[in-house]
Amino acid sequence: MASYTYQTLKVERDAAGVTVLSLNRPEQMNAFTVEMANELVDFFEKASEDDDIRAIIVTGEGRAFCAGMDLSKEGNVFGLNETLQPSLQDMQARRDDDEIKNGVCDTGGRVVLSIFDCKKPVIGAINGAAVGIGATMTLAMDIRLASEKAKIGFVFGKLGIVPEACSSWFLPRIVGIQQALEWVYSADIFDAHTAKEGRLVKQVYPAEQLLDEAKKLAHKFVEGRSPVALALARQMLYRNSAAPHPLVAHQVDSLAMFYTSVGDGKEGVQSFLEKRAPQFKQKASQMPPFYPWWSDVQDTF
Amino acid sequence: MASYTYQTLKVERDAAGVTVLSLNRPEQMNAFTVEMANELVDFFEKASEDDDIRAIIVTGEGRAFCAGMDLSKEGNVFGLNETLQPSLQDMQARRDDDEIKNGVCDTGGRVVLSIFDCKKPVIGAINGAAVGIGATMTLAMDIRLASEKAKIGFVFGKLGIVPEACSSWFLPRIVGIQQALEWVYSADIFDAHTAKEGRLVKQVYPAEQLLDEAKKLAHKFVEGRSPVALALARQMLYRNSAAPHPLVAHQVDSLAMFYTSVGDGKEGVQSFLEKRAPQFKQKASQMPPFYPWWSDVQDTF
Amino acid sequence: MASYTYQTLKVERDAAGVTVLSLNRPEQMNAFTVEMANELVDFFEKASEDDDIRAIIVTGEGRAFCAGMDLSKEGNVFGLNETLQPSLQDMQARRDDDEIKNGVCDTGGRVVLSIFDCKKPVIGAINGAAVGIGATMTLAMDIRLASEKAKIGFVFGKLGIVPEACSSWFLPRIVGIQQALEWVYSADIFDAHTAKEGRLVKQVYPAEQLLDEAKKLAHKFVEGRSPVALALARQMLYRNSAAPHPLVAHQVDSLAMFYTSVGDGKEGVQSFLEKRAPQFKQKASQMPPFYPWWSDVQDTF
Repeated sequence: MASYTYQTLKVERDAAGVTVLSLNRPEQMNAFTVEMANELVDFFEKASEDDDIRAIIVTGEGRAFCAGMDLSKEGNVFGLNETLQPSLQDMQARRDDDEIKNGVCDTGGRVVLSIFDCKKPVIGAINGAAVGIGATMTLAMDIRLASEKAKIGFVFGKLGIVPEACSSWFLPRIVGIQQALEWVYSADIFDAHTAKEGRLVKQVYPAEQLLDEAKKLAHKFVEGRSPVALALARQMLYRNSAAPHPLVAHQVDSLAMFYTSVGDGKEGVQSFLEKRAPQFKQKASQMPPFYPWWSDVQDTF
Repeated sequence: MASYTYQTLKVERDAAGVTVLSLNRPEQMNAFTVEMANELVDFFEKASEDDDIRAIIVTGEGRAFCAGMDLSKEGNVFGLNETLQPSLQDMQARRDDDEIKNGVCDTGGRVVLSIFDCKKPVIGAINGAAVGIGATMTLAMDIRLASEKAKIGFVFGKLGIVPEACSSWFLPRIVGIQQALEWVYSADIFDAHTAKEGRLVKQVYPAEQLLDEAKKLAHKFVEGRSPVALALARQMLYRNSAAPHPLVAHQVDSLAMFYTSVGDGKEGVQSFLEKRAPQFKQKASQMPPFYPWWSDVQDTF
Repeated sequence: MASYTYQTLKVERDAAGVTVLSLNRPEQMNAFTVEMANELVDFFEKASEDDDIRAIIVTGEGRAFCAGMDLSKEGNVFGLNETLQPSLQDMQARRDDDEIKNGVCDTGGRVVLSIFDCKKPVIGAINGAAVGIGATMTLAMDIRLASEKAKIGFVFGKLGIVPEACSSWFLPRIVGIQQALEWVYSADIFDAHTAKEGRLVKQVYPAEQLLDEAKKLAHKFVEGRSPVALALARQMLYRNSAAPHPLVAHQVDSLAMFYTSVGDGKEGVQSFLEKRAPQFKQKASQMPPFYPWWSDVQDTF
């Protein structure tokens, strides 16, 4: 099994593979640092390939979910090399150069892209304050549940900066463009019920029930499920829905249906007809040959 | 008039052109077969060009809407040629080759793409169980109404397979990405009220009223309406909303407004000023010269 | 300060830069004319670059918001040069030729594209009837508030014409594709509460409170805010959310975060740490060097 020992994260896994990833700087309200970003990327990259991890719940240790960027640390928003004049071309062509990667690339974005690429379902369990990057990082999680004590805010505007972590891509997909603009312009901190009304969180629970409910949901997603079929469905929903035409979805659908039908789908149908629980064999670490199907698409950006 | 005699479908049309298409295998709960797929494609292709058909309501004969793929039929999910190793390139370049078309292309997707291309408004009247392809095929319908007896489920995950029929393109557009992911991951079967709350169906009616309400809505869409203007609006809303920039919409809008203004729009404005019902003359079988405007776009996929 | 003297518009600005733009043909229920279109484009282009204008509220003088195209004026929907046979290629390659620009390009679309490109937040305060272009022009505004007396309708279908002003791009982003199709097909005129339930307007107020509430919201968007950060966030949300992949957002995010962090973000963080109100210095008329980042994208359509 891969090692999941981190400075800023805590990882706990149950027998079914439901894994709780806790942001673990409780005294700093789990404030986000470059170290935490690197550890999150490491976790999601490993978890994506680790067949013992079937679903991921992200929550915060202690009172907060994540109180945003740690502004007490020099070198985060401060300390940029101001002589740089990065351009969009730099971002497209030189994203792996150290100067751009470390000096310009948004750390929140690096985390969110690793969540986006992950083969496992991801549930955000927002247990308390989730502001700034603490709010935007949850947008790449598939489903957000909130404690009644959650406070959420896209507060960037109050600091003279912009929302990041690909939130401009995710937020309108989740809540619609009007609600997205209002929350970003106002920079308000709002409560869990407002978040649910605005369709940002799926359900609100009393604080003490939140993690149990998140686990219940995660178990529903993995028990009697094919990890390969789920990994495919996850990428299909995010990627195909952003395509300019349903034909793109049809092409991927057809391949995904073909390869699951000659794989776990056989057992799925058989067990259904025999009215018994399925015993799936395929593993997310060994995806069908057409996966990933999107390299060409990414290269054109 | 085109012939609409089918083995698995029933077609009834009233004087106004409101046409009820019933999935018609009631003893099998209208389970989906390759024959039904071919007949549905045939229907939507003909109906698109048939000026006597002005709006389409899709419903199920008997108790169910459509109970999903007919798993009792060998040759649907079983019987695929496992020596094939289809790739995305095959899907893009060889979609008309028999090996790919019959052996790999998702049949639900073929149906849904024929609905997508149709010039007529399509209303789904979900009268009972709509699961698997029975659920995903409704996503390409413009508006879904449901009976209180409807049960809807994207149950693919329980069978070790993936949602198909371009549902990864349509579902997030209708209900948002968060709700789409939850229903696909959970594979739950849910009732009509849950479907309405999640914005999947527009309205819920008592079972005995469903079809009448669907007809009322369809009549509203065609009486005093230009079939050409409506066909244009349908394609504009689906296709332009998926474009990366509103400028794409502006280019198509301008042409659509030009050609309707020098066509049915003259009578529309005249009748409005004279406070009388319009008498539109243009026919959906004879679209303005810029239609279809999307061939180039599709070719690039 | 730029001049904002118009025939069909009234412009009033307060000390904070909150600017009320009133459609000002009250005896004609603010019906839309080519002159009004040209003046609206002129206003939004100037306002975008005018640092004294920080937020824009659009409302209607008198009883109506905008009763649609002024059908009493010859030369709007009538009087087109019917010998023209414009094609999509014309729209893509010759959009600046007078024949296409004046004879084919949708005037509503020209207005809406100028709103889309604007650097300032735009609030629609729908005080009364908003039908046809009166409804579609509000879709490019960031947030719509409505008076209890508002009546909204995408009535084009009743006139044998199509919805315009890029509404096929905006409307599904705001209300989802199902609601968009229903309103366009039905061509119904609906009230403010229906508009809110369908997620078209954010909030409904008694008529006499509408403008005050709009101003309150606008003040929240500009006080203690960096005009540059807000202008960036506006364009990021609209443009990145339409991109096929979050990586596009990440590239722009990174640049926007870099340039705001070495600009107003310094003062933002400093004032936050010192628990005082920030004093931002950057101006929307002088955007960071990577802005606009989208020229290449537009050119490819």
